[in-house]
Amino acid sequence: MEKRISLNGTWQFKEANDTQWYEGKVPGCVQLDLMALKKLEDPFYRMNEIECHKLEEKEWIYKKEFDFDVDMTEEIDMVKLVFEGIDTLADIYLNGEFIGRAENMFIPHIFDVTDIINYGKNTLEVHFDSPIKTIKAIENASPVNLAWSGESARPYVRKAQYSYGWDWGPRIAQVGLWRGVYLSIIKDAEILNPFFYTEKIEGDTAYVNVSAEVDSYMDQDLEAEILVSYNGCVCAKKRVSVQNDKIKAVLEIKEPKLWYPNGIGEQPLYDITITLLMDDEIIDEKTFRSGIRTVKLLRNRDSEGESFIFEINGIKVFAKGADWIPADNLLPRLTRQDYYEYIKLAKDANMNMLRIWGGGIYEDPAFYDACDEMGIMVWQDFMYACAQYPDQFEWFQELAIEESEAVLLALRNHPSIVLWCGNNENNWGFYSWWHNGDPKYLGNFIYKEILPKLCAQYDPSRPYWVSSPYGGQDPNSEAEGDRHQWNVWSGWMDYSAYLGDRGRFLSEFGFQAMPDWKTVLSYTAPEDRTILSPVMLAHNKMAEGMERLIRFMVGRLGFPKDLKSFVYLSQFNQAEAIKTGVEHWRSRKFMTAGTLYWQLNDCWPVASWSCLDYYKRKKALYHYSKKFYADVLPYIVQEGDGVSIYGISDLLYNADAEVRIVVYSLGGKKISEKQLKTSLIANDVMKIAHYSTQDLNIGYAPKAMPVDIPGCTLPIEKNGELLNSVIYVQITVNGVTYENYKVFDRFRNLELVQPNISCNVDGNTITLTADVPAFGVFVETEEDVDLSDNCLNMIPGEKYTIKCSGTPGKIEIFDITRMIAKI
Amino acid sequence: MEKRISLNGTWQFKEANDTQWYEGKVPGCVQLDLMALKKLEDPFYRMNEIECHKLEEKEWIYKKEFDFDVDMTEEIDMVKLVFEGIDTLADIYLNGEFIGRAENMFIPHIFDVTDIINYGKNTLEVHFDSPIKTIKAIENASPVNLAWSGESARPYVRKAQYSYGWDWGPRIAQVGLWRGVYLSIIKDAEILNPFFYTEKIEGDTAYVNVSAEVDSYMDQDLEAEILVSYNGCVCAKKRVSVQNDKIKAVLEIKEPKLWYPNGIGEQPLYDITITLLMDDEIIDEKTFRSGIRTVKLLRNRDSEGESFIFEINGIKVFAKGADWIPADNLLPRLTRQDYYEYIKLAKDANMNMLRIWGGGIYEDPAFYDACDEMGIMVWQDFMYACAQYPDQFEWFQELAIEESEAVLLALRNHPSIVLWCGNNENNWGFYSWWHNGDPKYLGNFIYKEILPKLCAQYDPSRPYWVSSPYGGQDPNSEAEGDRHQWNVWSGWMDYSAYLGDRGRFLSEFGFQAMPDWKTVLSYTAPEDRTILSPVMLAHNKMAEGMERLIRFMVGRLGFPKDLKSFVYLSQFNQAEAIKTGVEHWRSRKFMTAGTLYWQLNDCWPVASWSCLDYYKRKKALYHYSKKFYADVLPYIVQEGDGVSIYGISDLLYNADAEVRIVVYSLGGKKISEKQLKTSLIANDVMKIAHYSTQDLNIGYAPKAMPVDIPGCTLPIEKNGELLNSVIYVQITVNGVTYENYKVFDRFRNLELVQPNISCNVDGNTITLTADVPAFGVFVETEEDVDLSDNCLNMIPGEKYTIKCSGTPGKIEIFDITRMIAKI
Repeated sequence: MEKRISLNGTWQFKEANDTQWYEGKVPGCVQLDLMALKKLEDPFYRMNEIECHKLEEKEWIYKKEFDFDVDMTEEIDMVKLVFEGIDTLADIYLNGEFIGRAENMFIPHIFDVTDIINYGKNTLEVHFDSPIKTIKAIENASPVNLAWSGESARPYVRKAQYSYGWDWGPRIAQVGLWRGVYLSIIKDAEILNPFFYTEKIEGDTAYVNVSAEVDSYMDQDLEAEILVSYNGCVCAKKRVSVQNDKIKAVLEIKEPKLWYPNGIGEQPLYDITITLLMDDEIIDEKTFRSGIRTVKLLRNRDSEGESFIFEINGIKVFAKGADWIPADNLLPRLTRQDYYEYIKLAKDANMNMLRIWGGGIYEDPAFYDACDEMGIMVWQDFMYACAQYPDQFEWFQELAIEESEAVLLALRNHPSIVLWCGNNENNWGFYSWWHNGDPKYLGNFIYKEILPKLCAQYDPSRPYWVSSPYGGQDPNSEAEGDRHQWNVWSGWMDYSAYLGDRGRFLSEFGFQAMPDWKTVLSYTAPEDRTILSPVMLAHNKMAEGMERLIRFMVGRLGFPKDLKSFVYLSQFNQAEAIKTGVEHWRSRKFMTAGTLYWQLNDCWPVASWSCLDYYKRKKALYHYSKKFYADVLPYIVQEGDGVSIYGISDLLYNADAEVRIVVYSLGGKKISEKQLKTSLIANDVMKIAHYSTQDLNIGYAPKAMPVDIPGCTLPIEKNGELLNSVIYVQITVNGVTYENYKVFDRFRNLELVQPNISCNVDGNTITLTADVPAFGVFVETEEDVDLSDNCLNMIPGEKYTIKCSGTPGKIEIFDITRMIAKI
Repeated sequence: MEKRISLNGTWQFKEANDTQWYEGKVPGCVQLDLMALKKLEDPFYRMNEIECHKLEEKEWIYKKEFDFDVDMTEEIDMVKLVFEGIDTLADIYLNGEFIGRAENMFIPHIFDVTDIINYGKNTLEVHFDSPIKTIKAIENASPVNLAWSGESARPYVRKAQYSYGWDWGPRIAQVGLWRGVYLSIIKDAEILNPFFYTEKIEGDTAYVNVSAEVDSYMDQDLEAEILVSYNGCVCAKKRVSVQNDKIKAVLEIKEPKLWYPNGIGEQPLYDITITLLMDDEIIDEKTFRSGIRTVKLLRNRDSEGESFIFEINGIKVFAKGADWIPADNLLPRLTRQDYYEYIKLAKDANMNMLRIWGGGIYEDPAFYDACDEMGIMVWQDFMYACAQYPDQFEWFQELAIEESEAVLLALRNHPSIVLWCGNNENNWGFYSWWHNGDPKYLGNFIYKEILPKLCAQYDPSRPYWVSSPYGGQDPNSEAEGDRHQWNVWSGWMDYSAYLGDRGRFLSEFGFQAMPDWKTVLSYTAPEDRTILSPVMLAHNKMAEGMERLIRFMVGRLGFPKDLKSFVYLSQFNQAEAIKTGVEHWRSRKFMTAGTLYWQLNDCWPVASWSCLDYYKRKKALYHYSKKFYADVLPYIVQEGDGVSIYGISDLLYNADAEVRIVVYSLGGKKISEKQLKTSLIANDVMKIAHYSTQDLNIGYAPKAMPVDIPGCTLPIEKNGELLNSVIYVQITVNGVTYENYKVFDRFRNLELVQPNISCNVDGNTITLTADVPAFGVFVETEEDVDLSDNCLNMIPGEKYTIKCSGTPGKIEIFDITRMIAKI
């Protein structure tokens, strides 16, 4: 039996070569402790980040004095001191005695202190290295040069790589006991590493495999009882004898309730209890939760190369989601509730997958619990990103082995996790940036030898994938595997380039926008509030990020009138860009089988590719995501002499649908309307209709000229006119209406008419109507309330209702015509 | 003896399947003729270009009725009909008889019409193909696919490639007799293809080679007298017998006056007369002009690869100049005076080389004459650009052979021409864009077989170079040969990338700016005058050109207040960008041995990389060029803990110099001043001084932090301050003062103070003074006058004088602080 005594709470800390002790908190970190003491200002405000840089070279000591009053005369077999997370390089002393060194923030550190702990007073000290001096010393002494992006020494330490700065995050090298500390007191025996997974589902029976290990201090033979229950009702039960300290059984579960991704089905979770018994005496008991589902990664040769499709319980699932980064630079302040809120937001945006990116952390248990409960599939990277790693050294291999074992044991019971992935972009780097070919080491030994072996050993239930992106000779090929599409944005290409991309699974692609206006206010003083102020530049961590925001804005919309216009226009542009990509790739279902846009969230208030800013405020992209990730998506494409309407359906059944198509002139006149009925094909894409522009009364057909000069601008024909129509499509299925719209040129080239938008507020409900087609309509509320929708593209005369999480206060309305400066 | 009868002047023309004849002009083209008839509007205004597109599919007939009243009973041996230039595909009929077809606009077409021409009335007709239909037909029938940029059919026709549109020019496919037409009447014999070149210069003697061919209708033996004279005085003379219809002699010229490039010496030109004699009777005589000079291209292995240095008369010359494109889309309207003005402008900007780019034309004789007279070296491309060419076909090889012979014979007497070059960017294309390796054909047969052979045969006096860029495995390598640096601008990189570029000879690099404000007014209606209007977009032919202008503007300066600010800020930014590149490369002299920026001129009013716009109005870059191409250039670099001052000298002697260094705060306070004397090293670069920032009283040294994240933004230290100083350096040599300045961050990050600029106009002289450091100070005059300087960077208190070509009228002054919008 195991008993735990928490050592969390108030500790003492000091700078190593200082004498003054201060109160600190565990879990916590030195930055948060200094902030609490008002010795460090909020690093997210203005340019305070620089103060964190100054802390980097310091060493710190954390100290806890505690009484240990467990009666040692009781038959205690073992006392373990467990650190759930130490960030990162630290020596640990108990009662003055060195008990070990920590070198990996990602895993728990467990020390046998049975012989060192005192009955009564104890002093525990953790002596932290500077998070930069030690690794710089290792780097300087290293016989190899490692290619990298960002801080060159970071590959030498198993610390969250983003903490040394990334193109969306500040450089704040957290130091401290960032997760809990406790004593684990063992008597007789302990159940370790319980594991539950679905071997197969045949007919109405699921065959589930349950196993665990036993650490026993007893001589007697032990037995284990395994109980699988759902909602308190036992579904299967088995008693087995413990052999070689191992428990192992296969159980049959009749009519199992299968775990499905969000949008496809429910997320039933089973409780598994393993009870260790000596005769009928309970020696130890562990209960945990898991789900029943199978996962396959379908990789089959086809006309374009090789497929990359996730199949859950035999059903092909188009992955809709985003990439996840750590949600703070100061991790200990994230709460379980924060994680549940994030995952709920993803679910509400009709996402079904998040990729935990390899430059961050293996996430908090709450993250995976929430994903299990809400049907968010997890693509789990191992924590190697955008660098070569020194795995030619045995010490680094050992760190990697220890880490992957710990991670696999900790996470493998989560049904939400559907893929282990070796790293982020390092194999792409070997091929395209560093020109290493396919090296034996530089990280490849981990991704191609260590990880696949250990994943197979500790978790036979899931596929392993070498890297993201990977597949094909060029790891970032369009023909095979997953793909990061960064020609757009990073490569300065307009987002129309998405339309030519035939990637099989887009695991990254993105487009920046500013955070919410209230968030901009939060990190600026009034004098900072110009688009190119030093503070504004410092809160866009991508070099030339602001230039790109502007380049793409003028490329599509025009010049912003002022900073606030810049904020909203950037959000509208981002939403339109990602919409363009996702719609294109969903229309290729399943030649493309997933779109995870970069990125769901932020780690501080910043201009970034996220749809949710640091304060979880929704950018326009979030609201768009709900629509372009909905299970039914109307898709409008210019084809041939006119316009085709497609219906993309993730529904698992053929669904009757009513389709309405209306065309308005930009001046607000309805110029045509069509209605029809159809049946959408289950989990597929269908062409619903095609209309010529004449059919739709769109008074313009571009005149064919004998000219064609790619790459050069050509004047439009002067006796023609700019396409001045907008087409709206509504598809209604089961009483739910799904909408989309299309205009026929870049907004900057359209003859937009400034709409009159009427706005009615009734309690927490806002209702809007416009007299002419209105685009990028933003509602700004005085109060910091959450809105059910925003950044609307409005059909004239139709009513749009927005629910607020509280009373909104004064309201202001912006649309793109009001924000573009005609200079 | 040859006698000529011009057929220029008024012709008739009509559309082929029309009946109505109109008056047209030869030399001329159908576009100009239609404009004169008011049947075509100015294609350069607004988006009128489109009307020229509509003409492309038409065929045209030009007709000339003329009397031929030369007495045929005189002993005439031959009558030739000579077209100096036919654009392009045309059948020619004389008196209803088909006499030949033209397929190459670049060369003269000569037809023997002795037996066809009538004494009395004659009718000459030229039937032009559509400039697109025929070549599209050839392209469609072609068994090969040729990679290209722009119009895909253009490689099939020997017509100026830019006429199908380029990223700085409209698509206006000129059709017509663009150069003169005449009858050439030969009696007895004719001297053809006279040639003069310098074999070598030894001590005080030049050995010059003079040759010619003789086309004789006589049986008698002939002699030739060769006379070389300078300013009317005979310097050398030789009489030789004509053997095998050839004249050939080597003459010795004592104490020759050598031809030097601009800035290094004079441009003496010799007159060469060849007189064909039968006994002492003059049968024919040809006089032409040339110069005495040797040219070598020094290509020697060195520490960085292989040098690429032009050596004239044994002196290494750093090439300073620009690339030249055709100066109009409607070529016949260019006058001899136009060419002289352009070359004078180049000379006045201290240029010594122009590269005639391979997508245009072999230039008008006036161009080369002016270059001969003003010391502008010419890098002459053959006219192949940015495409694969169908030289696997014999017919195309024959066109190429005929063309290169004609071009070499026509141009080889010009001392200004220093290099023949096979093409523009096609070998770079093979390597980097089209992945052909080093193919046998696709144009390579021309560049690597035909051209080197014919150049050696017809012109042993000059080097031949395969392509621009060329040299090294990667034809665009930094280590060898010439280089086109387009990472900046085309590759969206900031111009700071120039500073890392170690190209050996920069034959292209560029940065766009808007044309002169008056030019913008000329092609727009008032409603077009916003930055992103359709007309403004149509007058920046580079796809996403406007986005780039804006991206680089906000990257360096900030947002423009309005269109006019946009125009001036773009010019300032361009000038600063090219200045940065040129100064860096000149400081590497002779590791880098030339900078030809893209481009000197324009072919229509457009936003482009030029320093002179279509109306020869000077952009800021032109004024900057005068300074950064001056023979003495002060160069200021941040090095180590401070600032180093270099003196770059193209003077051929060591020169005493006085150096003054003043530092001002941006607020206008002089914070330090240094003076020293030194001696600049001849034709070399020397470090004059180094000062720490403390020495210069610049109150800021950036604080070293333990952070370094390339590619990410970092906040500046908040307790620091933006560098707020400007350093000015003046070097005075022989009473001439050369100036330069440096600020320590991008202008957008500096705390600029708005200057008070006082302006005094006295007749045609404008005098300016500023109270604080002023940057990008533009003088705008009411009248369209030429200014001797503009876009000034002013030292507080100093007087700046600008000469106007006439009375300026009302004056407005702008500086960058007045044009940047703080939004």
